[in-house]
Amino acid sequence: MTNIIELKPIGLVKTSASEDQIKHRKAISEIIVSEDLSEALEGIEEFSHVFIIFWMHEIRELAGATLKVHPQGRMDLPLIGVFATRTPNRPNPIGLTVVELLKKEGNILKVKGLDALDGTPVLDIKPFDPLDTAKNMLLPAWWKKLHKG
Amino acid sequence: MTNIIELKPIGLVKTSASEDQIKHRKAISEIIVSEDLSEALEGIEEFSHVFIIFWMHEIRELAGATLKVHPQGRMDLPLIGVFATRTPNRPNPIGLTVVELLKKEGNILKVKGLDALDGTPVLDIKPFDPLDTAKNMLLPAWWKKLHKG
Repeated sequence: MTNIIELKPIGLVKTSASEDQIKHRKAISEIIVSEDLSEALEGIEEFSHVFIIFWMHEIRELAGATLKVHPQGRMDLPLIGVFATRTPNRPNPIGLTVVELLKKEGNILKVKGLDALDGTPVLDIKPFDPLDTAKNMLLPAWWKKLHKG
Repeated sequence: MTNIIELKPIGLVKTSASEDQIKHRKAISEIIVSEDLSEALEGIEEFSHVFIIFWMHEIRELAGATLKVHPQGRMDLPLIGVFATRTPNRPNPIGLTVVELLKKEGNILKVKGLDALDGTPVLDIKPFDPLDTAKNMLLPAWWKKLHKG
């Protein structure tokens, strides 16, 4: 399992939102898709929500890759495996967020709720649909504690 | 936007399910995570559902990368941009599926509903939580036609 996989970004994130707005999923951002891929966006405006898959390399570099973390650095929460969290400090720092698609204009998507910094490379865009939901979802106690307020 | 991003698989999919079961999200599969990453799975069993992010390179090679497709090859559905579909024929053939997490045993996750073939490289695993849902979701007419039966 040592084969290296190579990807090329399909675009990047442009936003002037504050880090606080970004973290709390209140940012308005633009996804600037490479112009040669414009045609691949046709019809996406008929979906209200899309997944943005992005590359959190710079954030990961700051914190370093690791196997276990306290969620969001909170020492009152247990130390758990990175695959049980959304931390960027993971083996492949791939980010995944469901955003509201506000507008499409040529090769640019205007979205709300993306927690990616200005300049973040985008790897893929996918429509969000009802198959992407879970019935009878169970969550750990730490997750509920983290998101209660 | 030409920087190449390099990823290393964190594991692979093992399944004896039929292609039909896989396609209809009825397969039971194992995610065999690299043993050196076992610790990164700790605590994931407290979630009932997880995202599997995988690499659909082989499927893409069969069909070729393109900018527009008829969803699932159905000629009665419109020709639309690949970013508005879940086709593997996309610039970066990243697959994304929400699965039910049935069991964790060491470095192996047993999951239900993964639409990835036996041997597929896995890039990342993330917990699924209520932030990954959409309110007032809108969908195109072709999507409803495709999934009505």
